Amino acid sequence: MSNTFGNIFCLTTFGESHGIAIGGVIDGCPAGITVDTSFVQQELNRRRPGQSAIVTPRQEADEVEFLSGIFEGKTTGTPIGFIIRNSDQHSSDYENLRTTYRPSHADYTYQTKYGIRDYRGGGRSSARETAVRIVGGAIAKLALQSLNVQITAFTSQIGHIRLTEPYQAYDFSLIETNPVRCPDPNAAEQMENLIRDVRKTGDTIGGIITCVARNVPTGWGEPIYNKLHAALGNAMLSINAVKGFDYGNGFEGVSLRGSESNDEFVMREGEVVTMTNHSGGIQGGISNGQDIYFRTVFKPVATLLQNQHTINSLGEETIIKARGRHDPCVLPRAVPIVEAMTAMTLFDFYLLAKASSPM
Amino acid sequence: MSNTFGNIFCLTTFGESHGIAIGGVIDGCPAGITVDTSFVQQELNRRRPGQSAIVTPRQEADEVEFLSGIFEGKTTGTPIGFIIRNSDQHSSDYENLRTTYRPSHADYTYQTKYGIRDYRGGGRSSARETAVRIVGGAIAKLALQSLNVQITAFTSQIGHIRLTEPYQAYDFSLIETNPVRCPDPNAAEQMENLIRDVRKTGDTIGGIITCVARNVPTGWGEPIYNKLHAALGNAMLSINAVKGFDYGNGFEGVSLRGSESNDEFVMREGEVVTMTNHSGGIQGGISNGQDIYFRTVFKPVATLLQNQHTINSLGEETIIKARGRHDPCVLPRAVPIVEAMTAMTLFDFYLLAKASSPM
Amino acid sequence: MSNTFGNIFCLTTFGESHGIAIGGVIDGCPAGITVDTSFVQQELNRRRPGQSAIVTPRQEADEVEFLSGIFEGKTTGTPIGFIIRNSDQHSSDYENLRTTYRPSHADYTYQTKYGIRDYRGGGRSSARETAVRIVGGAIAKLALQSLNVQITAFTSQIGHIRLTEPYQAYDFSLIETNPVRCPDPNAAEQMENLIRDVRKTGDTIGGIITCVARNVPTGWGEPIYNKLHAALGNAMLSINAVKGFDYGNGFEGVSLRGSESNDEFVMREGEVVTMTNHSGGIQGGISNGQDIYFRTVFKPVATLLQNQHTINSLGEETIIKARGRHDPCVLPRAVPIVEAMTAMTLFDFYLLAKASSPM
Amino acid sequence: MSNTFGNIFCLTTFGESHGIAIGGVIDGCPAGITVDTSFVQQELNRRRPGQSAIVTPRQEADEVEFLSGIFEGKTTGTPIGFIIRNSDQHSSDYENLRTTYRPSHADYTYQTKYGIRDYRGGGRSSARETAVRIVGGAIAKLALQSLNVQITAFTSQIGHIRLTEPYQAYDFSLIETNPVRCPDPNAAEQMENLIRDVRKTGDTIGGIITCVARNVPTGWGEPIYNKLHAALGNAMLSINAVKGFDYGNGFEGVSLRGSESNDEFVMREGEVVTMTNHSGGIQGGISNGQDIYFRTVFKPVATLLQNQHTINSLGEETIIKARGRHDPCVLPRAVPIVEAMTAMTLFDFYLLAKASSPM
Repeated sequence: MSNTFGNIFCLTTFGESHGIAIGGVIDGCPAGITVDTSFVQQELNRRRPGQSAIVTPRQEADEVEFLSGIFEGKTTGTPIGFIIRNSDQHSSDYENLRTTYRPSHADYTYQTKYGIRDYRGGGRSSARETAVRIVGGAIAKLALQSLNVQITAFTSQIGHIRLTEPYQAYDFSLIETNPVRCPDPNAAEQMENLIRDVRKTGDTIGGIITCVARNVPTGWGEPIYNKLHAALGNAMLSINAVKGFDYGNGFEGVSLRGSESNDEFVMREGEVVTMTNHSGGIQGGISNGQDIYFRTVFKPVATLLQNQHTINSLGEETIIKARGRHDPCVLPRAVPIVEAMTAMTLFDFYLLAKASSPM
Repeated sequence: MSNTFGNIFCLTTFGESHGIAIGGVIDGCPAGITVDTSFVQQELNRRRPGQSAIVTPRQEADEVEFLSGIFEGKTTGTPIGFIIRNSDQHSSDYENLRTTYRPSHADYTYQTKYGIRDYRGGGRSSARETAVRIVGGAIAKLALQSLNVQITAFTSQIGHIRLTEPYQAYDFSLIETNPVRCPDPNAAEQMENLIRDVRKTGDTIGGIITCVARNVPTGWGEPIYNKLHAALGNAMLSINAVKGFDYGNGFEGVSLRGSESNDEFVMREGEVVTMTNHSGGIQGGISNGQDIYFRTVFKPVATLLQNQHTINSLGEETIIKARGRHDPCVLPRAVPIVEAMTAMTLFDFYLLAKASSPM
Repeated sequence: MSNTFGNIFCLTTFGESHGIAIGGVIDGCPAGITVDTSFVQQELNRRRPGQSAIVTPRQEADEVEFLSGIFEGKTTGTPIGFIIRNSDQHSSDYENLRTTYRPSHADYTYQTKYGIRDYRGGGRSSARETAVRIVGGAIAKLALQSLNVQITAFTSQIGHIRLTEPYQAYDFSLIETNPVRCPDPNAAEQMENLIRDVRKTGDTIGGIITCVARNVPTGWGEPIYNKLHAALGNAMLSINAVKGFDYGNGFEGVSLRGSESNDEFVMREGEVVTMTNHSGGIQGGISNGQDIYFRTVFKPVATLLQNQHTINSLGEETIIKARGRHDPCVLPRAVPIVEAMTAMTLFDFYLLAKASSPM
Repeated sequence: MSNTFGNIFCLTTFGESHGIAIGGVIDGCPAGITVDTSFVQQELNRRRPGQSAIVTPRQEADEVEFLSGIFEGKTTGTPIGFIIRNSDQHSSDYENLRTTYRPSHADYTYQTKYGIRDYRGGGRSSARETAVRIVGGAIAKLALQSLNVQITAFTSQIGHIRLTEPYQAYDFSLIETNPVRCPDPNAAEQMENLIRDVRKTGDTIGGIITCVARNVPTGWGEPIYNKLHAALGNAMLSINAVKGFDYGNGFEGVSLRGSESNDEFVMREGEVVTMTNHSGGIQGGISNGQDIYFRTVFKPVATLLQNQHTINSLGEETIIKARGRHDPCVLPRAVPIVEAMTAMTLFDFYLLAKASSPM
């Protein structure tokens, strides 16, 4: 079940970049959720190529067609099948990939493992698969909205340009006002310029996305091997180009003493809160009612419009240079993917918590 | 199945810190593996309390008793059940925890989620559970040895003291020569001194463990939702006190351009290799034959021999100060745990790769 | 994951009887299997409505559209997504089902469980879903063919008319020569006549399908909770209208002594065989190299063209009489479904056996 | 995970017949269930050897030792680990089994599949493993009691002696008054005599156990591939010596017309009921509020105190005759096992229904 994500709320995905369609099945979605299909499409549009000047100019409509599981506007508890047709394929751009392996792509490993691959546009290993996740995430978001849980992701670093304040310092309503999806307009402009500069040289750049989940109640997460933060880490690391994950003060808290890092409890207006939140809202793998926040680091896009050394399927050394239309930086389009994976993870834990509630 | 780790080779664990015993069941272990029980015990000894002056002075024999699944020295393909009796419990040290929640521990979240908890020594949330993982990891290591796969973890940072060279610069045979398990003797001494200093103040400290897996063949890992690096990240994040994970150049490569970060392919003595290895031996979620390496960051131990603010089960603010015998720093004892989780993860992918091999 | 079948080779299905499409995703199918799409379609045609005078006259093209996972005629190891469009829907035949529950159908239980249902044509609970299984089964059959495993199902009883000889007495090449799919032409004629008679009164009838799997090698099956016969039973009981399952001499051997029922071992031309095969080719949940055979009993179709007492969603007693086009007997169309479920089950165990083979 | 039973409430078992201990881990059990350990032991006693003159005279104390997951008399939501020590082993009775395969036992298939086996007393394939299921079932029964669900199994047939009335005709309080566990005292006496007669000749005999579950509310069961009756069938077929399963009127209803077999709905005192219950309380894989009932057929015990032809590991034909102490008929001891598996299955569906309840 390597193409399935989740325990109770499960998304199974299929599809190659240049095949007929990509799609998915959501199993375990409870009945009774009102599905606003325009919201689902709006989420897809946030990930869609061609949405701004700093992403790939490919034009994919990315229109989702729901095939089952929704009746008279509501989920029915039966599996939700859906497809997204592939349309704007320039497969000829990829003919050279039939026998040549792109550096830091999955061409070589897929070919070696499976003995065959759909090489066009990266096939199954293409980030095009993440469009399917957006649909699953949109359904999960709709369900979480009724539970008042809010999930917000944003670009916090591109190359060396980074936000320097804690997330609380920023106005999240500004995130969608710029193409990099950064809540700090000044930083956003610098990031955008950096992406443009990098692209001019045929090069690419990576960065960090921060995600915050608010109003998650205490008790979501299933120790020992399904801890909330481990599931979030697993979700993030499943996204193409992700190289690392941390939550709370993570790697940045490595030099602190326990007395500096611990989150002491106090009562505030009758509620249990922590004075600090270095734990990122999670203790022992279970949410503690504070904000959940975490970081995900993305490597630079591996596809370069520059010459690179590589080998081909005959074991001969050769030179490769990408053709076609590519993203110089994935982060702007990855923000909604991070949110989608977070939404599915959290909603799954909500359902697990129902199943594991005390008698 | 929140207490089970793995897909084919599965470890299910049970047990509380101060209960009668902890233990586990390994299901899906192939028949025919020779089990050197002295090796298993030796691995347990690397994690055992009381092994050096910089860890907790608790004395637990941590002797494993195998109950099934091994016959005449070999695994039989049936489940391997085993227990480790708890012996040196000072439960009275924990009587105050019945109603008071330790900051940055799981007391509050467990109590809220389950409505009941074995508070003694942290109960199920205690890192004592990791002794069971060592047993599963030892069996996996024995199996991987026959496949020539080598796994080595070491302490690469304690507080602000860190190794500055790539892992290749160090002699791994020195790791077990010092109590912090660091391959650089000078750094090890500084780390050890830092831990001693921190302990004197009743405080604690965290750090980073690096792990390297060598000779993993190309083809281990199952995209999309069971990528090798995501499974490793999930495994690491399941360990108590872990706050983050990255692989390859991870967070440290965030400022690089694609042209600096990509790993170009070349032929060396008839084998496909990469000129660099920023990918950490994994591309598209599948091993590529190069070294796999990753980092895991541990927070400082949450148990302090200092006063801290907290609340109790009645919602009253109070002060807590730990009694008993505690680790000032978990990393020395966590090194074998990182190896064990890595071994189980890799062996599981070996078995998955067998199941998914082309017809 | 209630809509997924299998452990390694997994079919996830979606779709309602009168929705846009039904479909599925096959995950875990090994790369390198040549997919003869005409064979897949031919299998679908064996289940298709309208194929003979004794089944429903509905006309569904039941054409499968593969969307992914197959490249240049071969499986690639990535998920195989596919859909079958619904075409010949007379949803108006079902308008009365919006609020009225058909006896011995799932209308009442779905409505009570989910609070909502697509009532048209039975929605998700319709046997239309089994068309998706045919596709999964066809892929599994193609894979099993390369392993020389042969699966044959046939109608062995309709109402009180039954085959009286062991399966070895019949010529399986005759099965597809008559519309009931029975290898005994005389019995087939009687069965066909019985079905016609029953239909004239607006009534329905059930029966038994026998299935035989030949050339399954010793060693498929995973005790304790994934025994080969338990998995086959689970597979059969998942088919609409099935009420029971037995294997080997099953219920019919209940009066035998152990000395009459045991299968003694002998050597025949250097091979281990059993003198009898009351065990149905399975001992301890693992295939033993002899023929695997089992029976599946189907109840009469619940949809009657007769008045029946029932209730509606307001809790009022009422009378219902089906409209539309229905099968008087499901067995002729269920024969390929039994084969498909058997094929998927066996191929899954082949893959599991690879994963669990001794080191 | 072939040694795990269940989806949410999961029992993983381990242990061989003549090993140190058998045992299990229950994961996913909700917190807050009061565990009456004397009830658990009483259930074990119902399965224990030596309890009457018609079962094996082996003496196993079968005392369960709980190791975790229960605190101050209640479940805590953490895994419940437990062991049962093996005590009365006459392993020397089995020395001849090292190389000789017992007919209709799993010796040959285990040896061929795994290349090694603990041959003593049947090792892992022994029905001794079912003692572990009794413990899991007892916990599930305690949980179901608080939901008012009652599960009762009884022997309804031994050889050719069978109960001829529907289960409603019998007084279940008489079941435990005779050693065969049959609610009809006259039939019970005949069954007991038959078992004694069969034993005198060194032979064995099988039969049928009927099980009834009352007060299961509407809505338990998860279509399509986790239907309530399919899960029950799978559970029953996992029990040693079981050859078949049916529910409702099952195989016995094969000759009925739809008009005879359908269960029409009526209102009774404001509740929806069915006039008949040929469906066995399940429609579309979901409980409908009526009694759930089903049958499980057991073959005669394969171990005979008679000479049988067989082969050995060298492929030589030979004669085998069992030594030791064996059951002439498993049904009396299997009644509590059927109940235990039913209890675990139903409680699991209760938890699944919580997870899948409408938003």
